[in-house]
Amino acid sequence: MTAPTTLQAGERILLQARSGRKTFLVELTPGRTLHTHDGVIKHDDVIGRPEGSAILSHMQMPFVAVRPTLVQKMMKVKRRTQIIYPKDAARIALELSIAPGARVIEMGGGSGALTLLMATLVRPDGRIYSYDRNAEFQEVAKENVSKAGLAAFVEFFVLEAGQPFGQSDVDAVVLDMPEPWLAIRPAHESLRLGGALGLIIPNAEQLKAAQGAAESAGFQDLTALEILERRMLVRQKEGVRPSERMIGFTGYLLFGRKY
Amino acid sequence: MTAPTTLQAGERILLQARSGRKTFLVELTPGRTLHTHDGVIKHDDVIGRPEGSAILSHMQMPFVAVRPTLVQKMMKVKRRTQIIYPKDAARIALELSIAPGARVIEMGGGSGALTLLMATLVRPDGRIYSYDRNAEFQEVAKENVSKAGLAAFVEFFVLEAGQPFGQSDVDAVVLDMPEPWLAIRPAHESLRLGGALGLIIPNAEQLKAAQGAAESAGFQDLTALEILERRMLVRQKEGVRPSERMIGFTGYLLFGRKY
Amino acid sequence: MTAPTTLQAGERILLQARSGRKTFLVELTPGRTLHTHDGVIKHDDVIGRPEGSAILSHMQMPFVAVRPTLVQKMMKVKRRTQIIYPKDAARIALELSIAPGARVIEMGGGSGALTLLMATLVRPDGRIYSYDRNAEFQEVAKENVSKAGLAAFVEFFVLEAGQPFGQSDVDAVVLDMPEPWLAIRPAHESLRLGGALGLIIPNAEQLKAAQGAAESAGFQDLTALEILERRMLVRQKEGVRPSERMIGFTGYLLFGRKY
Amino acid sequence: MTAPTTLQAGERILLQARSGRKTFLVELTPGRTLHTHDGVIKHDDVIGRPEGSAILSHMQMPFVAVRPTLVQKMMKVKRRTQIIYPKDAARIALELSIAPGARVIEMGGGSGALTLLMATLVRPDGRIYSYDRNAEFQEVAKENVSKAGLAAFVEFFVLEAGQPFGQSDVDAVVLDMPEPWLAIRPAHESLRLGGALGLIIPNAEQLKAAQGAAESAGFQDLTALEILERRMLVRQKEGVRPSERMIGFTGYLLFGRKY
Repeated sequence: MTAPTTLQAGERILLQARSGRKTFLVELTPGRTLHTHDGVIKHDDVIGRPEGSAILSHMQMPFVAVRPTLVQKMMKVKRRTQIIYPKDAARIALELSIAPGARVIEMGGGSGALTLLMATLVRPDGRIYSYDRNAEFQEVAKENVSKAGLAAFVEFFVLEAGQPFGQSDVDAVVLDMPEPWLAIRPAHESLRLGGALGLIIPNAEQLKAAQGAAESAGFQDLTALEILERRMLVRQKEGVRPSERMIGFTGYLLFGRKY
Repeated sequence: MTAPTTLQAGERILLQARSGRKTFLVELTPGRTLHTHDGVIKHDDVIGRPEGSAILSHMQMPFVAVRPTLVQKMMKVKRRTQIIYPKDAARIALELSIAPGARVIEMGGGSGALTLLMATLVRPDGRIYSYDRNAEFQEVAKENVSKAGLAAFVEFFVLEAGQPFGQSDVDAVVLDMPEPWLAIRPAHESLRLGGALGLIIPNAEQLKAAQGAAESAGFQDLTALEILERRMLVRQKEGVRPSERMIGFTGYLLFGRKY
Repeated sequence: MTAPTTLQAGERILLQARSGRKTFLVELTPGRTLHTHDGVIKHDDVIGRPEGSAILSHMQMPFVAVRPTLVQKMMKVKRRTQIIYPKDAARIALELSIAPGARVIEMGGGSGALTLLMATLVRPDGRIYSYDRNAEFQEVAKENVSKAGLAAFVEFFVLEAGQPFGQSDVDAVVLDMPEPWLAIRPAHESLRLGGALGLIIPNAEQLKAAQGAAESAGFQDLTALEILERRMLVRQKEGVRPSERMIGFTGYLLFGRKY
Repeated sequence: MTAPTTLQAGERILLQARSGRKTFLVELTPGRTLHTHDGVIKHDDVIGRPEGSAILSHMQMPFVAVRPTLVQKMMKVKRRTQIIYPKDAARIALELSIAPGARVIEMGGGSGALTLLMATLVRPDGRIYSYDRNAEFQEVAKENVSKAGLAAFVEFFVLEAGQPFGQSDVDAVVLDMPEPWLAIRPAHESLRLGGALGLIIPNAEQLKAAQGAAESAGFQDLTALEILERRMLVRQKEGVRPSERMIGFTGYLLFGRKY
């Protein structure tokens, strides 16, 4: 990762007690302390240390300090809206070729979980242009992106659905909004030739309306799908089987391309 | 994308006829021609032009030239082995936080489809260390990575399963190999604290054996799952429904982390 | 089973060669012969024998003669239309409490696969009233039902969608037809209080329209669902995993009840 | 249904208030009363009336009295064990051709939900021979079967796993028990030629062991599968989509046949 190798004040990190392997999520703050059964840890003893460092509590018990994974960062954003699930975010990012240098418009940024993922992937030269009609939600997303150290890679805009985006020749557009068809023509206008469109859509009727709008706007290679994730229970004695609990549905995905 | 903005000799690109919207995949080669119902196109008229350029055939019919998407590149690699599906590759890349700067060991690189994805994501400072026990398969992967313009970001090694990897403090290890448990302890040794492990596994018994080996090696946060993709048929007249065809199974995924 | 215990001329039965365990489906016909690698079998040597009898070929090789299972009978009907899958037929039969004595209206009987199942279950005192707008398809269904020895339990009618059914106080109504909403009010009129409605529906829009019509007609406890079947590959050496092939979709089911 | 057409003392029935369409489940008991917002109903006013009768409360408010459906009866049995889901019970019943006249052995009858279904289907001439190693659970099943008015069609036996069953030439055997392989050879011995075996199995290892035992015992046409049920949310305004909640797994099914 190109992230600074030492843990910074303001970062959210995981502290794991080596004794019982209990894990604590803390936002590193100068002067603050973490109280555990294995003793007290001073944030100042962590700040400035490299990731993976062993940290001793006042009881001389060892802890290890690591950064959260990308998925953990996404799932732990402060939320004002429903956030996108990793199963869907992963597929959107791949299908839209979100990679270093990409310039991406996002409409309906919500709490910023997908923003955070995409900003991580396009560094250092790419940009995420994150639009939302709701200025209040956007403040939450801004805070989440900022805390993740990604503010330099994201520009935020408040915009009503259907209005033109301020960028052109972008590589990808992601729409996660009610009435996504309103933004499909503006998306087409802002995309470069070869650029890709991705939508996450809550029901069958909206999927149909969005696909119709995308066809009208000239998008091609339209593909609609759904991603299901099935957890497996793997136990050495009791045996292997799918988990009894499963998330039944999170949304349909629709992808297209501008030629 | 940080890729050169002009289309290069040796690149595989898509040429789409604007008339009937038929698309051709061609490897740009000086002196070669593409014959279509809309006329002949000289590769030399495409080489050196920016992505998205309009190209005219000898019949003055317009074509547009674009690069394949990341998924198209993965799915079109020359194959000597079964390749990983986008649904699985996307989730592995996200779960292992594959992003700019990451250093990743891959064992069982096969034909290089996942290598190609990960190399794209870690540019420019990260590296993929791609291991395979089969030198012949690896030659195919090398060729695929090279044609994708990613040779600078991948180092290839031939290694027997169970032998130690040559790198240390890597951010992630991916194992896509028979008997993956053989490589789990070497993976643990090569990972940095906080680094992540990902496996793709063909059946329930191997999933159990791999999870047992990962527990023994000290991996934590072990999570096993399966990703299913369901295509939707979205037709304005006939209505919306899931496709009748579905891929039933491609593999189990197992993830863990070194603390 | 209340079926006659001896195998009858006209029945379709399975003949299995004990040597190589190869199975043959034959319609027992006086005077006819079956030619196999294990020798010739005269149908007359099978007719009149009890199910499960050992039959010898002219080469003195043993065969066993059994009746097809209910599922095999359903799947082997002569087809003029798409037939219902066991996964869906089973759930419809249970949800509608199709059992001995039940009187059931079916609209859109098609080739008679579900008719055959329901007629088997309601014997001897129940009845299936099988409607179709297409007299030609119905002839195929009649033939299938007759060959299965179930003609006494089924009455066939040709009827346009939306016309009233000729029965009242039936226990259940099954609709498997285009535009099923046309028949929902007639279904409500023909059902007894406490009777149940079941539909199989090809897409999301029709599901919505049908549910709307069912609500308007006064149906209660409306439940919509889909049944998926996943085959497992169970191999002692290679291990256990879901099959790579899977039928992605066959239809939505909608159930309701008249109170 | 061949059930008596009048509602009997001891039956569990549904009383639905026509005003607000609220439904009450009551066990009809002479002298007892049901208190509702729409007034008091005397059970004696219901006993002896035909199903579907309108019943007036002491406030002259109308109620309708109906019997539960087969699924409702199964789901409402008094439980001492996990019961089988309709999605699985339906498929087992169909795959084993459970129909009027069938003679069926069941091992691991548990609380009797599947017993109740099968006893309903084999009436009046068939029989369910219900075995369990646990006499206490079996008492619960007996009570459930008896309350459903099906006692005449079921014989109960306590038996250790692996012991021979007391019947021969049965049409089907269902095993829903730990270590089902113990009962597979006895199942084969008790089945008629052409008879069918069905198992419900909790994990991949047991599925493999059971299939291995079934192959060794001589069963053929072995088929392993899993049934998934996906509820759909169908709302006229908000649109159609799968439910967010889903039961992830209930068991594998294994079927075979004796030739």
